[in-house]
Amino acid sequence: MGIEEITTVDITSDALAAARQAGRSVVKHTPVTPSAALSDRTGGSIVLKAENMQRTGSFKIRGAMNKLASLGDLARNGVTAGSAGNHAQALAFAARAHGVPCEIFVPRNAPIAKIAACRSYGATVVEGGDSLDDAVVAAQARAAEKAMQFCHPYDDPVVVAGQATLGLELIEDIADLRRVIIPLGGGGLASGVAIAVKQHDPSIHVIGVQVEACAPYANEQPPTGPVLTLADGIAVKRPGTVTRPLVEKWLDDIVVVDEDAVADAMVMMMERSKLYVEGAGAVGVSALLSERAAPSRTGTTCVVLSGGNVDLGVVPGLIRRFETQAGRRLILFVKVSDRPGGLAKLLTIFAEQGASVIDIEHVREGVDLHVRETGVTAVLEVRGPEHADTVIDAVRAAGYEVGQ
Amino acid sequence: MGIEEITTVDITSDALAAARQAGRSVVKHTPVTPSAALSDRTGGSIVLKAENMQRTGSFKIRGAMNKLASLGDLARNGVTAGSAGNHAQALAFAARAHGVPCEIFVPRNAPIAKIAACRSYGATVVEGGDSLDDAVVAAQARAAEKAMQFCHPYDDPVVVAGQATLGLELIEDIADLRRVIIPLGGGGLASGVAIAVKQHDPSIHVIGVQVEACAPYANEQPPTGPVLTLADGIAVKRPGTVTRPLVEKWLDDIVVVDEDAVADAMVMMMERSKLYVEGAGAVGVSALLSERAAPSRTGTTCVVLSGGNVDLGVVPGLIRRFETQAGRRLILFVKVSDRPGGLAKLLTIFAEQGASVIDIEHVREGVDLHVRETGVTAVLEVRGPEHADTVIDAVRAAGYEVGQ
Repeated sequence: MGIEEITTVDITSDALAAARQAGRSVVKHTPVTPSAALSDRTGGSIVLKAENMQRTGSFKIRGAMNKLASLGDLARNGVTAGSAGNHAQALAFAARAHGVPCEIFVPRNAPIAKIAACRSYGATVVEGGDSLDDAVVAAQARAAEKAMQFCHPYDDPVVVAGQATLGLELIEDIADLRRVIIPLGGGGLASGVAIAVKQHDPSIHVIGVQVEACAPYANEQPPTGPVLTLADGIAVKRPGTVTRPLVEKWLDDIVVVDEDAVADAMVMMMERSKLYVEGAGAVGVSALLSERAAPSRTGTTCVVLSGGNVDLGVVPGLIRRFETQAGRRLILFVKVSDRPGGLAKLLTIFAEQGASVIDIEHVREGVDLHVRETGVTAVLEVRGPEHADTVIDAVRAAGYEVGQ
Repeated sequence: MGIEEITTVDITSDALAAARQAGRSVVKHTPVTPSAALSDRTGGSIVLKAENMQRTGSFKIRGAMNKLASLGDLARNGVTAGSAGNHAQALAFAARAHGVPCEIFVPRNAPIAKIAACRSYGATVVEGGDSLDDAVVAAQARAAEKAMQFCHPYDDPVVVAGQATLGLELIEDIADLRRVIIPLGGGGLASGVAIAVKQHDPSIHVIGVQVEACAPYANEQPPTGPVLTLADGIAVKRPGTVTRPLVEKWLDDIVVVDEDAVADAMVMMMERSKLYVEGAGAVGVSALLSERAAPSRTGTTCVVLSGGNVDLGVVPGLIRRFETQAGRRLILFVKVSDRPGGLAKLLTIFAEQGASVIDIEHVREGVDLHVRETGVTAVLEVRGPEHADTVIDAVRAAGYEVGQ
C-alpha cells in the first residue's frame, strides 16, 4: 500500500457487469465441485473451481474477451501479444470471435502444442527472438508499425475486470464462501477475483499463491536468470504497475509453494479429482497440501484451478515420481547364468510374483562376475513396499544373489 | 426383444424420483460442458457429461446409494460384492454413508489403488480367488453365511433406477438434447439413462458403445478367455437377465470401438477437455472420433464420460503412443568415435538443434563397426516431423553416418 495507493485503479461493479456481458458468447461458467479428498485431508470444506475446463484451457479468455470488447473499432487492424502460453491462446480465440486479425510473437523453442493451438484459432504466429521479453518487444513493435493494438496479459484494468468475472461465479455458486485460495502470477486474476468477492462480502478472505522459483509479490526480490518451474504460467518476474497496488490492497495473504508441492498437487488432481490441471493452476492445492495455507474453519473454502494447459510430455515424469514415492518401483541387481535360459528363469520368478518388468538391462562392465555369469539390472513395477519385499524374498529363495 | 420382453422390468418415473432422493446427500450433480474440439471435428453440437468427477470416480455410486436405501433394515448385517473396480468403491462408500458393514471380494492381483480406495471408505477387502468370477462366488457365499446382502453391479432394477438419475440431470441441463452416446457394459447405466431421457422425450436417440474386446450386446458371441482392454470397466461378458431386455428395448443403436480409438479418446480428453477419463468412460468419445457414431444433425448430442478411475500407470504409455504418432519421437542410430568426447560431440549437436535426449544406448554387438567406432542409439524428443528432419540434417552435416 502506501505510495502506490494513488495509482490504484477502481474496478467498479458496473465494470464487472460489462466484462461479463463482453464474455457472454464465449466464456464458460465453469463448474464448482466439492473435493472430499482435500476436505478430509485439511479438515475444511473445500470446493474446486474447475477453470481448467474454461475455453482455451484457462481463465485468460475472460480478460481477452473484455479487452477486445473495450477496444471496439480501435482493434479493427488487429491485436498483438508476446506470449507462448495461455494469454496467446486466449487472445487468438477472442480476436477470432471479434473478427479481427491477431499476431502472436513467441520465443524460439516455444512448445509446439501451444503454437498449434494459436494457429487453430486463426492467429498468425511469428518467432520473436530468444526470450519472452524479446517476443513482447517484437509484438509491441508490430503493433506500432501496423496500427494494431498490443494487449498486455495482465497489467491492464480492463483485463483485470475480465478475470474478475470468475469471482462473480464463485459468489453465485457457493452459498457460504469464506475463503478463496488462488494462483498469483502477474496479479490480474488474483486481484480481480478478490475485488469481485469482496464487493459482495468484504470478510471473504483471499490468499494468493506464488511459486518459490519466482515469487516477486512475496519476496520483493525478482529472480535473476531463467526461471525453471512446473508453474511457468505464474512465473512472472515483475509485478504490474496496475496490478501491484491492487494485489497489495485486496489480497489478505500471499503464500509460497515449492516444486514438490506443485507436482504433488498436479498428481492429486489427476488421481482424485479426475482433472488435468497445469502447474500454475494447481498451486492453490499445493498450498493446502503443504500447509502453507489453511481452509477457513467455517463455511466453504474455494481453490481456484486456473488452467489446464500442461504439455502432455510433462505428465509421465510426474507419474513416475509419484509411483516411486509410493513404493511402486523396485530396482534390483541380480547375477544370472549367461547360458540360454538364465534370464528367462529370473523373469519367470518376477512373473509368478506379479511384478511387471518396466526395464531390464545387462550390466557386465565394472561388476564383479564369475566367468559364466552376467549382471542384470531390473526395474519392476510392484504393488507397494510389502510386495517389493515378497519379490526380493522369492528371488533369493531361488538361489540368486540380489543387490538393490 | 421377442421372448425376453416378458421379463422386462418397468422403471417408473416414481422409481427415478425415489432413486434421486436416495442419493441426495452423496451423489454429485456432475457438470455438463461443451466440447469445442469434438464439435469442430464432427460438425455436431457436442457436450460432455463429466460423470468422471462423480464421488468415488464413477456413476456407480448412484446405483449403490439406491440399493442401500431400498434394502433398508435388510442391510443391517452389511453388504458384499465381488469386484475390483468402480462397483466396489461405490458400494463401500454407500455402505459407510448408511452405517453398515461392507466386505469386498477382489481377485488376486487386483490394482492396489482400488483396494486402497475401498479400505479408505471403511470396507473390508478380502482376496477372493484367481478371477473376478471366483470373487463373486466368494462374496455370495459370505453373504449367505453372515446374513449380509450380496449386491450385483448392474443386474438389478434398483441399481438401474439409480444409474438412471444421470439421465434426469441431462434433461435438466441440456435444453435441446437430441442424442446420448453412452458406454455399454453390463447395461445398467445405458438402459437406465435411456429410460430416463425417453420418459421425457421418446424421440431422444440413445447409442450404446461397447469395446471390441468384449461386446456381447453387439456380437451375441461372448469372448472366451481373459479379456485385455483399456476399457476394462465395460468388459462384461454376460448381459444381465434384467438389463438385457432393457437394453434391447430402450437403446436405439449399439456400436463397437477398438482399442486404438479408446486410447485416442483418453488422450484427447486430457489434452483438450482437461479431464481424466478411464477407458470405459471414454468410449463415447472413441465412437465419435472413429465415426462409429455420428452426432445429431439438430440440437445437442451428449457424450457421457462415465468414470475416471484409471490407474496412473497406464497414462505414460498412452502419452508415449500419442507423441510418437504426432512425430515427436525420433530414433537414430549413429556411429561415433570411441575416443573420449565422441559421444559428447554428438550430444552437443542434438542440444544445438533443440532436441531432448530421452534415451541413449551404446550398441556394439551385431553391428558393422570399425575398430575405433561405437554405435549409439538415441531416442530424441522433437517438435514434429520437420524438426526431426532438421536434426538428421545437422547430424549428417557434421559428418556422421545416420541410420533410422
